[in-house]
Amino acid sequence: MAASADRIRQVVDDYIRLVGSGTADEIVALYAEDATVEDPVGTDVRTGHASIREFYATLEGLQQETRLVEARIAGGEASFLFEIITRAGDKTYTLSPIDAMTFDDDGRITTMRAYWSNDDMVVS
Amino acid sequence: MAASADRIRQVVDDYIRLVGSGTADEIVALYAEDATVEDPVGTDVRTGHASIREFYATLEGLQQETRLVEARIAGGEASFLFEIITRAGDKTYTLSPIDAMTFDDDGRITTMRAYWSNDDMVVS
Repeated sequence: MAASADRIRQVVDDYIRLVGSGTADEIVALYAEDATVEDPVGTDVRTGHASIREFYATLEGLQQETRLVEARIAGGEASFLFEIITRAGDKTYTLSPIDAMTFDDDGRITTMRAYWSNDDMVVS
Repeated sequence: MAASADRIRQVVDDYIRLVGSGTADEIVALYAEDATVEDPVGTDVRTGHASIREFYATLEGLQQETRLVEARIAGGEASFLFEIITRAGDKTYTLSPIDAMTFDDDGRITTMRAYWSNDDMVVS
């Protein structure tokens, strides 16, 4: 049976929290073994835990906060707008991508695609 | 050559405007001949102008306003959060789906998938 909307919402909440303050291993644990990540949309697709871990490992050292803005769940899939606020020196970089995710029956993420471009980065 | 981000942004703006105050024919003209529409995600996919026109024709009689909230464009695709406000009698129904679209080289919509569920409808 497909993952319930409540389960999917929980995974989305966990994902947002862990992108802000978790380790790459904790984030990767949300993904199915053969999952794919395309971030941003239009770039090379990463497949499997090792490649996905490498992607999130680049974020581990950064001082980041995240916040879910809006999430929509339909047909066992999710799309959500969220903010990633990164502080480096005296600058604050705010990016708010829209991510789309599919899930397996246990609620593990099977595909993630992130819609954003450099034009969407706000520096303050 | 793929449609530019500027062209895609224009089509998204046109789409939002026409869903609010256009005719089904005007909306369908934004779509490629063999385009698909899945609205909401998880329901039957409509294929081609005739089937897509039928879908938007159901909205034609309604008193609606629309507003783009956030749009992200990446890799020749778009995802955007928008509001559809429908007034009927003394009630106001607000739905804010997240839509994902792909485009052909001329900027015509080739696929549209709308993430929302009845739980997201706000009645006031």
